[in-house]
Amino acid sequence: MQHVQDPDELLTALRSGDRAALARAITLIESARTTDRTVADQLVERALPFSGNAVRLGITGIPGVGKSTLIDAFGRIAIDHGKRVAVLATDPSSARSGGSILGDKTRMEILAREPNAFIRPTASGGHLGGVARRTRETIVLCEAAGFDLVLVETVGVGQSELAVDGMTDLNLLLMITGAGDELQGIKRGIMESADVVVLTKADTANPSLQNETRASLRNAIGFLPARDHGGRPAVLSTDALTGRGLPELYTHVQQLHERVSGAGHLAHRRQLQNVHWMHHALREGLMEVLLKDPATMAAMSALEERVKDGSTSPFSAAAALLDRFRTSGARLP
Amino acid sequence: MQHVQDPDELLTALRSGDRAALARAITLIESARTTDRTVADQLVERALPFSGNAVRLGITGIPGVGKSTLIDAFGRIAIDHGKRVAVLATDPSSARSGGSILGDKTRMEILAREPNAFIRPTASGGHLGGVARRTRETIVLCEAAGFDLVLVETVGVGQSELAVDGMTDLNLLLMITGAGDELQGIKRGIMESADVVVLTKADTANPSLQNETRASLRNAIGFLPARDHGGRPAVLSTDALTGRGLPELYTHVQQLHERVSGAGHLAHRRQLQNVHWMHHALREGLMEVLLKDPATMAAMSALEERVKDGSTSPFSAAAALLDRFRTSGARLP
Repeated sequence: MQHVQDPDELLTALRSGDRAALARAITLIESARTTDRTVADQLVERALPFSGNAVRLGITGIPGVGKSTLIDAFGRIAIDHGKRVAVLATDPSSARSGGSILGDKTRMEILAREPNAFIRPTASGGHLGGVARRTRETIVLCEAAGFDLVLVETVGVGQSELAVDGMTDLNLLLMITGAGDELQGIKRGIMESADVVVLTKADTANPSLQNETRASLRNAIGFLPARDHGGRPAVLSTDALTGRGLPELYTHVQQLHERVSGAGHLAHRRQLQNVHWMHHALREGLMEVLLKDPATMAAMSALEERVKDGSTSPFSAAAALLDRFRTSGARLP
Repeated sequence: MQHVQDPDELLTALRSGDRAALARAITLIESARTTDRTVADQLVERALPFSGNAVRLGITGIPGVGKSTLIDAFGRIAIDHGKRVAVLATDPSSARSGGSILGDKTRMEILAREPNAFIRPTASGGHLGGVARRTRETIVLCEAAGFDLVLVETVGVGQSELAVDGMTDLNLLLMITGAGDELQGIKRGIMESADVVVLTKADTANPSLQNETRASLRNAIGFLPARDHGGRPAVLSTDALTGRGLPELYTHVQQLHERVSGAGHLAHRRQLQNVHWMHHALREGLMEVLLKDPATMAAMSALEERVKDGSTSPFSAAAALLDRFRTSGARLP
């Protein structure tokens, strides 16, 4: 058990490039202990003025699409361009392996040996805001620690994926060349939050299948609404093992990010994300307060059953709960 | 100004087929007056046991796609099959024309003259839950009044569209044959909540363009996730003016609804919708309570600015607001 840490000391250490301090700070963020949370909140608040300078990139795709391999190769190119790269993996499979850094480091062999790279899985479960909140706060810390590129990895099938669109600047959706049927597992909205569609493992597919997949995807994208910045996602082919298409992908992402930043879209997007998360946290916080009252919670379960079988309306049930909370004289604790 | 009405009398009248009573009941639901709301809540609660027997169909598409014309023709076929048809228009353009029933009746010439059809625009603005809540409650009343088919019309570009997926059994997305570019205006998620894609005005496009549009759309749909019931939307061509494709559309919708009902998907979907709306109303209700305190509201605005410019984190801001509410000793009013 660690003694309580000083947020200012921790901030100074992580800003000086102390990777162990960054790792400790993230552990604080992930802690469920109240004393840790207090320090973590202070730390994030003090790190904010030093954050915001990284390119925040979401990397989404079903298991097996080749996310780790692509991140490994993409991150290496960024490092060759003089960047420092942080990888935050919200992939539940990493969390299942005990949130082990080792597991992720094995998956990303190149980055694992790079002094300018930092790989961290995000543990699942726990307190208010969950994975999304912890990931957002970890981005802030990584930026304060001087990382220029933050890659947030998700599988695109779970609950947290849509949340990723609320914390990244641009999103890469990875798809296997010629594997249209496997795309069914992708959660609704994921395709629509993609800024770049990356076809992976291109070299294992024959050229005509590659062209077919690309043409189909471009057509499909034409039916989707445009992204905030007015563009539609490009479809790029890559093969991370041979490295083919990776430099082009890197240049494309870099230019897209510059274009989005230049036009003021990025600042606006980040503002909206912040306000969205504030409202979300407030709603969740109020709900949490309401459900802290055991009697209210029991009433809620009973009302849910009645709402399900249609014997009471959802709005009457909600009103009854609010009323119950009020007349019980409960205060916000 | 009307005197306060008795919910039981109103329910008996509307169940006996009294259309004026149904219209009066919906007006109560739309009223912002507290006394009206109380009666409306009682009425909806008492109508619930007599509701749930209609096919609830969402009709979405951008302005100009031909929603009214299609609804008019589709509704007429349903009436020919012995059904009673209610049309709830949440199209903001109908609301803008003063929520005028006349406007909608002009748009739907056939249904406007049918004794077995009931057309009602949903007024926008107002109290908790907004258009979505009023539309849901109106569906309940229409079902209690014996309507077998409830068509909920939306434009697919506003705020309320995604809410429609939370109150309908199946959704029809209308698209103009060969007008891919115009689809940009459709809000994210709309395409993914479609159970049937209907190509309108087919006769104005040449056959090769029709085939091209259909093929493109089918391809695009292949990249979307499957609907809850496991299927992907069919693409059907119609021309409401000549009537071509309308009987096929009617049969398709009827069979799809039967299949969905039979497999238990529909009951499950409606249960989830109900619970979703209960939680939504509860969150909104709590938020409303919080913002009733003028000082809290002022603090919220100030914190939003700080969250926007990145000088405080969204989560700290939310925590500060909850804290503020608590220490001010505020009770739920």
